[in-house]
Amino acid sequence: MMTAHRKTNGDTAASFVRRHIGPSAREVTAMLETVSAKSVDALMAETLPASIRQAAPLDLGKPLSETEAIAHMAELARQNQVFTSLIGQGYSGTILPAVIQRNILENPAWYTAYTPYQPEISQGRLEALLNFQTMICDLTGLDVANASLLDEATAAAEAMALAERHSQVKAKAFFVDKDVHPQTLAVMRTRAEPLGWSLIVGDPLTDLDKADVLGALLQYPGSSGALRDLRPAISALKAKGALAILAADLLALTLIASPGELGADIAIGSAQRFGVPMGYGGPHAAYMAVRDALKRSLPGRIVGLSVDSRGAPAYRLALQTREQHIRREKATSNICTAQVLLAVIASMYAVYHGPEGLAQIARNVHRRTAVLASGLRKLGFAPQSETFFDTLSVDAGARRAEIVARAAAEKINLGVGETALRIALDETTTPATVEAVWRAFSGTLAYAEIDATTREALPEALKRTTAFLTHPVFHAHRSETEMLRYMRKLSDRDLALDRAMIPLGSCTMKLNATTEMMPLTWPEFATLHPFVPREQASGYHALFARLEKWLCDITGYDAISLQPNSGAQGEYAGLLAIRGYHAARGETHRKICLIPSSAHGTNPASAAMVGMDVVVVSCEKNGDVDVNDLRAKAEKHSKDLAAVMITYPSTHGVFEEHIREICDIVHGHGGQVYLDGANLNAQVGLSRPGDYGADVSHLNLHKTFCIPHGGGGPGMGPIGVKAHLAPFLPGHPATNAEAPVGPVSAAPFGSASILTISYIYILMMGGEGLKRATEIAILNANYIAARLDPHFPVLYKNAKGRVAHECIVDPRPLKVTSGVTVDDIAKRLIDYGFHAPTMSFPVPGTLMIEPTESESKAELDRFCDAMIAIRKEIAEVEAGRFKIEASPLRHAPHTVHDIADDDWKRAYTRAEGCFPQGVSRTDKYWSPVGRVDNVYGDRNLVCSCPPVSDYAQAAE
Amino acid sequence: MMTAHRKTNGDTAASFVRRHIGPSAREVTAMLETVSAKSVDALMAETLPASIRQAAPLDLGKPLSETEAIAHMAELARQNQVFTSLIGQGYSGTILPAVIQRNILENPAWYTAYTPYQPEISQGRLEALLNFQTMICDLTGLDVANASLLDEATAAAEAMALAERHSQVKAKAFFVDKDVHPQTLAVMRTRAEPLGWSLIVGDPLTDLDKADVLGALLQYPGSSGALRDLRPAISALKAKGALAILAADLLALTLIASPGELGADIAIGSAQRFGVPMGYGGPHAAYMAVRDALKRSLPGRIVGLSVDSRGAPAYRLALQTREQHIRREKATSNICTAQVLLAVIASMYAVYHGPEGLAQIARNVHRRTAVLASGLRKLGFAPQSETFFDTLSVDAGARRAEIVARAAAEKINLGVGETALRIALDETTTPATVEAVWRAFSGTLAYAEIDATTREALPEALKRTTAFLTHPVFHAHRSETEMLRYMRKLSDRDLALDRAMIPLGSCTMKLNATTEMMPLTWPEFATLHPFVPREQASGYHALFARLEKWLCDITGYDAISLQPNSGAQGEYAGLLAIRGYHAARGETHRKICLIPSSAHGTNPASAAMVGMDVVVVSCEKNGDVDVNDLRAKAEKHSKDLAAVMITYPSTHGVFEEHIREICDIVHGHGGQVYLDGANLNAQVGLSRPGDYGADVSHLNLHKTFCIPHGGGGPGMGPIGVKAHLAPFLPGHPATNAEAPVGPVSAAPFGSASILTISYIYILMMGGEGLKRATEIAILNANYIAARLDPHFPVLYKNAKGRVAHECIVDPRPLKVTSGVTVDDIAKRLIDYGFHAPTMSFPVPGTLMIEPTESESKAELDRFCDAMIAIRKEIAEVEAGRFKIEASPLRHAPHTVHDIADDDWKRAYTRAEGCFPQGVSRTDKYWSPVGRVDNVYGDRNLVCSCPPVSDYAQAAE
Repeated sequence: MMTAHRKTNGDTAASFVRRHIGPSAREVTAMLETVSAKSVDALMAETLPASIRQAAPLDLGKPLSETEAIAHMAELARQNQVFTSLIGQGYSGTILPAVIQRNILENPAWYTAYTPYQPEISQGRLEALLNFQTMICDLTGLDVANASLLDEATAAAEAMALAERHSQVKAKAFFVDKDVHPQTLAVMRTRAEPLGWSLIVGDPLTDLDKADVLGALLQYPGSSGALRDLRPAISALKAKGALAILAADLLALTLIASPGELGADIAIGSAQRFGVPMGYGGPHAAYMAVRDALKRSLPGRIVGLSVDSRGAPAYRLALQTREQHIRREKATSNICTAQVLLAVIASMYAVYHGPEGLAQIARNVHRRTAVLASGLRKLGFAPQSETFFDTLSVDAGARRAEIVARAAAEKINLGVGETALRIALDETTTPATVEAVWRAFSGTLAYAEIDATTREALPEALKRTTAFLTHPVFHAHRSETEMLRYMRKLSDRDLALDRAMIPLGSCTMKLNATTEMMPLTWPEFATLHPFVPREQASGYHALFARLEKWLCDITGYDAISLQPNSGAQGEYAGLLAIRGYHAARGETHRKICLIPSSAHGTNPASAAMVGMDVVVVSCEKNGDVDVNDLRAKAEKHSKDLAAVMITYPSTHGVFEEHIREICDIVHGHGGQVYLDGANLNAQVGLSRPGDYGADVSHLNLHKTFCIPHGGGGPGMGPIGVKAHLAPFLPGHPATNAEAPVGPVSAAPFGSASILTISYIYILMMGGEGLKRATEIAILNANYIAARLDPHFPVLYKNAKGRVAHECIVDPRPLKVTSGVTVDDIAKRLIDYGFHAPTMSFPVPGTLMIEPTESESKAELDRFCDAMIAIRKEIAEVEAGRFKIEASPLRHAPHTVHDIADDDWKRAYTRAEGCFPQGVSRTDKYWSPVGRVDNVYGDRNLVCSCPPVSDYAQAAE
Repeated sequence: MMTAHRKTNGDTAASFVRRHIGPSAREVTAMLETVSAKSVDALMAETLPASIRQAAPLDLGKPLSETEAIAHMAELARQNQVFTSLIGQGYSGTILPAVIQRNILENPAWYTAYTPYQPEISQGRLEALLNFQTMICDLTGLDVANASLLDEATAAAEAMALAERHSQVKAKAFFVDKDVHPQTLAVMRTRAEPLGWSLIVGDPLTDLDKADVLGALLQYPGSSGALRDLRPAISALKAKGALAILAADLLALTLIASPGELGADIAIGSAQRFGVPMGYGGPHAAYMAVRDALKRSLPGRIVGLSVDSRGAPAYRLALQTREQHIRREKATSNICTAQVLLAVIASMYAVYHGPEGLAQIARNVHRRTAVLASGLRKLGFAPQSETFFDTLSVDAGARRAEIVARAAAEKINLGVGETALRIALDETTTPATVEAVWRAFSGTLAYAEIDATTREALPEALKRTTAFLTHPVFHAHRSETEMLRYMRKLSDRDLALDRAMIPLGSCTMKLNATTEMMPLTWPEFATLHPFVPREQASGYHALFARLEKWLCDITGYDAISLQPNSGAQGEYAGLLAIRGYHAARGETHRKICLIPSSAHGTNPASAAMVGMDVVVVSCEKNGDVDVNDLRAKAEKHSKDLAAVMITYPSTHGVFEEHIREICDIVHGHGGQVYLDGANLNAQVGLSRPGDYGADVSHLNLHKTFCIPHGGGGPGMGPIGVKAHLAPFLPGHPATNAEAPVGPVSAAPFGSASILTISYIYILMMGGEGLKRATEIAILNANYIAARLDPHFPVLYKNAKGRVAHECIVDPRPLKVTSGVTVDDIAKRLIDYGFHAPTMSFPVPGTLMIEPTESESKAELDRFCDAMIAIRKEIAEVEAGRFKIEASPLRHAPHTVHDIADDDWKRAYTRAEGCFPQGVSRTDKYWSPVGRVDNVYGDRNLVCSCPPVSDYAQAAE
């Protein structure tokens, strides 16, 4: 009895591994049989080359149960100190309305959704993003906005690159306002240097005339708080054909003239203070808006309006052809993501408050700031600028340190500039806080008294007179009940992981466990300003240190940078490290970057951004890199070889046998190996890039390590490097300004708050659990490959017939026999209740399927059954039952509008169309729109909320 | 400018009142016009009798913003101390799986749902409740279980009453195991005494033979932890025709023989330890299961399976005719609610863990207990029982106080019994805790060492050999992904407040704001055992004190008891107070209770439970109480008059003019006035029952004060009393054992954790905001009355043509002209996307509509438009377009199954059926089943999960 007890006392019930991994032990056995493998170990042996298998098992300590993990996180949280941060510099305290927190940020219907590439099943978040764009256009007074960027600093760098393409000035110099946020300047420097652009920093109202620049970035209001009338500077720029970019504060814009009215061409900035917690640096949504003439160069994603198959309005991503995957090595941007979840939150904040609510918040903040200024003047500390919105800079002279210390004693952080102290208020600032600041400046004043004699400090000439947020959506949701229902309605239109498998190849839609998601909204993690004194963030730093160590253990690298806040940023940072390494060795000429033809489009784009020249290496018919071609090109460019960028397992979903050889060849010619970590989830616990020859990789924490996709962001892309590259990891003015490589993100630790997710995941899985996850991910992929191969041939396998963690199925021959397109299959899968696999990447016309370890056999079978049923439908076309144009495949997805037709004239029945095999009528997910017409939408670009009349037209 | 600023600086954006109340100021103006009222004040003057208007405005202090409220609650939370409670006594530490916490307890789709009286739109939670019943039947080994009861103690009292009805023994004596939980015994004493039943307390294995009892309640395992073989006692009971009731621990039942196997007739107990936080007493779900022969007497709600209009399986509440509203004064129970939300959580806990997971948890708990016992024996403290499951009792003699203190120093609470110390373990107990307990007993032992030599302590004869939870639902959701999707699927089948207005008369489905819901899952509120030393619950007690004061201010009463955990319990407690008062004055003969014929069925049932005789007072044609009849009956029964029970405003939704007169008449004859507080939400801030003559009321916190309905519970029904009744508020053995009236709930403060909700609501609304809420609730109701009256006559209005906070519309004449039933209208509303109003209460054949203050004008209009459109459909029947049997009214609700019919033979189009006026095709809510056949279900009673074969049949 006791022995029996011992055997099961692994706390089966408490093990998180069992919760994370879909298939049960019994299901694993059945699946092994289907794939004809003797055991999981045997399957691994047939899948991975023996030469790369890691020797020692991953030892990351004893995994914690969910309860233990939460207790551990509470302990870390206690090590963070929640001060009132009046630091400003682009980060503000804000109030996330509880109804939005619970029903978006903490709701899997929103946070587990994928990027809206399949517009039909993404109408909810697309509407929310269109609201975001409308809000940005309205507040900035510009014509077109994108659906968010990573952070304000990278948005500034992107804007500079955009200006460089469009400026009539040929000079490769760019002007930067000396009153921009320091981290913005630093990121722009990082970006400009490899491209050979010089930055001129100065006062735009005095220094611009002399400067021969292609454009300028001006901060509005300035980082110091000064609210200047920038019209003269903007006019001067436009006079010479240069572009004027304003970094503008959205809350201030509710009260002051918009960038568009001032004449700016581009506006960028952060939407963080619209309800998104600071999170020690992120994530939050940056924005960019441009004049109409620039819209086709706008980086990032843009949501637009189009029509569906019935001519009804439907949202979708517009102008997708602008994306980096076609620009490749000519790219000046590698942006391929957005901060959707955070942009959605910011848009909902505006929907909930409406224009009058936002303006009221702004007036309150400004009022408090004006009163603060009056008091400081009384105390002999006159703010440096007479006009301001919410931030004051004060020269405290010799008393500076004392004042900062007194503020700290009040649990208040002031901004410590190079000479001045900065005090930035926000919607959370109370009169009590203002009085505490006065006390820090040695004065005892009563808020109410000062308030009574204070006038506001917005210059008359800059007051906003134009309306904004006039669309009804910003007026109809003022009660919590209406707000709640609006968010529910939108989320119900979308298909996310909480309803069905999302089998996206290369995107790894695994479980985002609730326990992993809980701590990030705790105040101790959520409310920290990124530039608080380090000792206030001890919990965070303990977490960073342990996470870095774990990631080193997992990858075989020696050092990690947590700064890059997307996979593409990680690539960019990794290549900067390689570039820095060569430069430090006096080999600045090493600029050739070998990239296989199958690579993801971000690879060549990132290479271009660091000034490298891309040389494409061909692939063999089986999808593997052509080693001979690689060898030949490495030899040819031996002297100038900087790097190879390779994805492993390959973007074709196969572990190539020659990976060690490839690394050796490149090293042999003095090059560095950048191993794209997108597919690390097929390796964790089984093999380590650092062991078999890679020098640097980025790790997609939002794929392998469970950060949810959020409907298209946030992500995190830390990089791991071998020791020789460690000195060239990104620096940051707030942490290590002297680093040879500058920052790639606004915050030193990127989107710090969501690092908690990956940390908790590893904490609860342990080394053994992580390995098991990898094994089951591979088993699940091979199971799907085995089931589908007879119906849709699997395109690439290794010599033993195995795929890695994903597989590409090839319907192209069926196009010949039936006319069916990959689009037809993808849209038809919606009728079966599934999000489509990845379409046409890496091979046009094919589908790449990645099940992840989190899907149970039941769900895999439901998916395979659907695919096989679709194959039968295609056979009916082949057999001539109906033409493809008349088939349920082409009419997919079927909607309620379709089934409601009294006059059904189709060649198949309603049931065949709407409820194909295995689909529950009771619980059916209905696509809210029919197939979306992308061409129409791009031809008739509408990127902000349409006028009400359009809605009325569309109403049934 | 400054003045303008001042005017708006009420922090418009931060005001919660604006979020809670639906209509904007502009909408209010428009609505006043529709109802022909000059102002809100004028409307109030026309609605409430001047004689009852309260003189002074409600002053509850400055309302807090949502952010301030959360900060305030955090401060209260800090005043509670989270110890490890090993107190037992029916409350155990438990782990609520995070995925269930977030996606049920914190998800408005679940918590804002109403009681599933409309089964078509409640299929999700009905399935979850059927899972609960299946779980209870399986674990108890009995035939039929209900869908939960309020708590274990009241379940025991209910079981006693059931036994009394069914026993073959005529004696009015009942045996209670001396090893039951003390609060169970106390609640049973409260219940037995007014009914004249005597309780005999003793050892069932020795004392039962001599006792002439109608039945017995035995605890299994005992409250002390002793695990006894109760078969001899059960046999003895059955031999004499008495009923055997077992109070059984559900977790223990996974390892030990079930009550059914032991021969019990009834099992009761608590499902708290299946994932439901202790919450300082509640809420959690109690259970009751019975042998088949007793099923028609089973109190509470039972979910059963029936068929819908297409013959497909559909869940609904079974045997509803058992409910108290038909039994009225013959009732021995006033149960009219359940703890749905908590029963759902407990059922999901079982679905997630499955039988093997539950058994593993039980084995772990038992193992730790056995090891603890071994160690204690080593230390010279042998547990009193050799056999136990998770609880030990130890006689610590003179060292008792010292040990308790040492444990407290380890932050551990032990159970302090009359002689012994009790140590109850649970799934959260770690080896470290066991070692700490040993230290409290002055021993330093290592868990692992003791573990190695310990044998388990379950008696062989009691080991469970029968299977449980064999249904597939308990086997298919072991991964978090599957679990998440299952919960999402079920919630999508239901229509709750997060999608549409639920205009239920008398049920007050107002906003349950997110901020109100947040603190209750914080550990400082969630994890407290109800019997911790009071100083560990200082935060709770500060909250109770302030909430009591506020409720006194609001009602005009002098004292509040927070103990009753439902409205019906409140009524019962209120009548007990009246009874106690009369008894204390030597007037035990006062037993006549006057009740108007329009009263809610709980009124006479509660009166019967306290031994009063009900005399019905007639109502006038306009719905008012017939004052002359009341006067005559009061005079007739003057000597014996105990009380009148009256609802105000009346159940007809009108403020009667004569309320003061009624109170005076009853007082004149020595009676007390029980004013049913169900409609207090029409009075808050406008009038106070305590001012115009009432002596006692219960307050439905789940109606007036924002506790969500949870799909049919939890509720809270505190009572307020004038000073003379204060001594007769419910006592409790844990707080004031000497009180003249015993407890009515297991825990001294009822479902304490959800009191936070009402507290925060009042905190954020303030007196002015609460008054505004009442005014808008009345305006909204009058607006609906004004809009609908031309189409469906409003049945009752006051002399000035005003209704209170709800109105009854009368479609009965239409039945004559068209054949349409109230059911047809209710089900047709589902097609329009609405939950039906209250049907046939208080007037058969009518609909009672209560909009609450939280619905915006837009939503009210959507509802009125739907009702008017339905009236037009009825007119089409009247005009002969189709017969009622062939109309969309009778076929409602329309489902996906209907619209999918290729062969549509109806007299109306698909669109007319499925998308009547104003219904969005895109966002349509589809009822998952057609109209449910109640008669079929009651005739073919199936109350646990059907076998898979049935599911297979039902699958499309």
